[in-house]
Amino acid sequence: MLEQMGKAAKAASYQLALLGSKEKNRVLEKIADYLEAEAPQILTANEQDLLEARRNGLSDAMLDRLALNPARLSAIANDVRQVCQLADPVGQVIDGGLLDSGLRLERRRVPLGVIGVIYEARPNVTVDVASLCLKTGNAAILRGGKETWRTNAATVKVIQQALEECGLPAGAVQAIESPDRALVNEMLRMDKYIDMLIPRGGAGLHKLCREQSTIPVITGGIGVCHIFVDDSAEIFPALDILVNAKTQRPSTCNTVETVLVHQEIAERFLPALSQRMAICGVTLHGDEIVMQVLKGPAKLVPLKSEELDNEFLSLDLNVVVVVDIDDAIAHIRQHGTQHSDAILTRTLRNADRFVNEVDSSAVYVNASTRFTDGGQFGLGAEVAVSTQKLHARGPMGLEALTTYKWIGYGDDTIRA
Amino acid sequence: MLEQMGKAAKAASYQLALLGSKEKNRVLEKIADYLEAEAPQILTANEQDLLEARRNGLSDAMLDRLALNPARLSAIANDVRQVCQLADPVGQVIDGGLLDSGLRLERRRVPLGVIGVIYEARPNVTVDVASLCLKTGNAAILRGGKETWRTNAATVKVIQQALEECGLPAGAVQAIESPDRALVNEMLRMDKYIDMLIPRGGAGLHKLCREQSTIPVITGGIGVCHIFVDDSAEIFPALDILVNAKTQRPSTCNTVETVLVHQEIAERFLPALSQRMAICGVTLHGDEIVMQVLKGPAKLVPLKSEELDNEFLSLDLNVVVVVDIDDAIAHIRQHGTQHSDAILTRTLRNADRFVNEVDSSAVYVNASTRFTDGGQFGLGAEVAVSTQKLHARGPMGLEALTTYKWIGYGDDTIRA
Repeated sequence: MLEQMGKAAKAASYQLALLGSKEKNRVLEKIADYLEAEAPQILTANEQDLLEARRNGLSDAMLDRLALNPARLSAIANDVRQVCQLADPVGQVIDGGLLDSGLRLERRRVPLGVIGVIYEARPNVTVDVASLCLKTGNAAILRGGKETWRTNAATVKVIQQALEECGLPAGAVQAIESPDRALVNEMLRMDKYIDMLIPRGGAGLHKLCREQSTIPVITGGIGVCHIFVDDSAEIFPALDILVNAKTQRPSTCNTVETVLVHQEIAERFLPALSQRMAICGVTLHGDEIVMQVLKGPAKLVPLKSEELDNEFLSLDLNVVVVVDIDDAIAHIRQHGTQHSDAILTRTLRNADRFVNEVDSSAVYVNASTRFTDGGQFGLGAEVAVSTQKLHARGPMGLEALTTYKWIGYGDDTIRA
Repeated sequence: MLEQMGKAAKAASYQLALLGSKEKNRVLEKIADYLEAEAPQILTANEQDLLEARRNGLSDAMLDRLALNPARLSAIANDVRQVCQLADPVGQVIDGGLLDSGLRLERRRVPLGVIGVIYEARPNVTVDVASLCLKTGNAAILRGGKETWRTNAATVKVIQQALEECGLPAGAVQAIESPDRALVNEMLRMDKYIDMLIPRGGAGLHKLCREQSTIPVITGGIGVCHIFVDDSAEIFPALDILVNAKTQRPSTCNTVETVLVHQEIAERFLPALSQRMAICGVTLHGDEIVMQVLKGPAKLVPLKSEELDNEFLSLDLNVVVVVDIDDAIAHIRQHGTQHSDAILTRTLRNADRFVNEVDSSAVYVNASTRFTDGGQFGLGAEVAVSTQKLHARGPMGLEALTTYKWIGYGDDTIRA
């Protein structure tokens, strides 16, 4: 079955690659319209998914993440209309020139081909990914969370109706509809048909893809982010940044998990930190020094060493006292996930050192780690946040869904 | 042992990333000087390798590929001096600007970190890869062919002497010195330390890396390249291009392996092709139609279907008659390796169609496939030729050994 899907996707990708922006936007608009017009069939499927999820004992918070309603579906349709407004990177000439040999060389941006996406839970991702892939002339094979497989299948059916209405093959957007996990392993070996694989989920999914996939994988989205409070930091602005980085949306990957406090400022900073975090309802996980010097008012527990290497995704914050900036950088190198790390300082040399020596996708000086986001960075859309170094690093916009080809125009030109 | 090498490489990479071009060039010049000054120890190791290779029955051609002498070593040293002349991409600001939030964002080119290279045979690759990695501020872990492991070890020892002379750690360039193949499998799982893996060798090595590596891999270098002779092609210029693409250096990956001949021109073209290829000593492997219409003078054998999917790397050429350009494009999609493919035509629309519809790293109009090369493309150096689509496609220059980081400068800036 997957082999057939792969073939259909590859064939569709050849057709999509030839479309101009106007034609691609027409498909996207049709998809948005159909999502609203065919809402009943998607909502019915979603109700069935929710019913089963409730039977399986999913939490109310989780059920809310899975739930669709007419308003949410309209919002999703409007997101697709927004994608129409984005600039299309396909066809752009990156560089080129006339070579000594007489060959006229051009490097042109083209779609990647077929993009595989494996994601968990939220059903809006189906439409989100499909629209970004279509906008860049790529076919997509989607494998959504098993909790919403009926919703995803119904959504993709509507997308395929819109595609066919525009004279395009249904193979351009396909979903693996069975919740069978063995199919994921099979999908990971489809390097013959899938050009790039994007896992969107937890650390386990990324590890599985890195270890099992024969397709190039973009891993990311796991953020053990640090903020280093240097001895020259100003306490109150530093607290504002920490509150923003920890509490604005604790479940995101760019949320800070560990604050590293320079020992010279610790005595003044830690009590102030505890007061602000108490107000925000944040539990502090302190290292040995912190446990000795700090009493409250924030809830304080001793940190377990494994907590330094994992995301809390909750209102919890590790607090570690470091000797100096070298110690802070060494800590980030050991425990970070190369996502987003910040220094709060008034010392220019330390700002430069942090920026140059911390090997993360995004590094910040006197700013919140929460900025690591395609929208915030002005990329228009965000396909994923990459924490590996090849192809794309940090927030991935539409350009990350393209590659390039070299085109050589000769006049019966041969190599000397 | 590999774990120790990985740690040393990662530590060295942090130091290398901070070097300016001047400091990196000083190391390269020192390496070039040492390669000449310490020639005796490298040549002695090479003699031992050759002795064993001869005992193991390697062909004279292969032995010649492995052999070093003072002149070849000087040429290798001069190649290193050439690398000094190349522009250093590290530190380049790709883009940036002031965001609405007040964050000043900059995307800066930085080294990848640690690059793993697995290569076969030729000992010059050791110096070649080491110098390109150092030029871009990367550490390297090298695993050369088992036939020259003593030569490689002696060469790396000299490089490490030069590194230490410049105050840099020997961990910056390391070789896996044992010929034990199990170490390759271990190397492929070192994603904790190695940021990018470049295999340089045959199809088997690339397959092994794609299937077993947990490190992002750049596969490539396998070229089943096609030239399509359209019905509007001019016969004699077409023959010149074919001779160049087949015979200039038959063992390279950008050599043509299959010529696709439009049926409308076949009757005139095939006899002329046979005459020219007879002069060049090329054996034609004909499909059924070719076998029927062609008698000689070139040596002609019936093509075996698997020959359409593999490189000859010799003076052999598949000849296949196709119905039209659609048939030609379909053939390339089925049998090509997305390396280099060309159309010979006088019809503008067909040239455009071929360029747009053939999904290869390099596509040519009225030019030889032999141009796919870092030097020919003006990249200054060639790390490898990628036939996958992520990160780098086609000839890879120094830029392909870098990634970027996002740097956000705030003024106590938080996300709204």
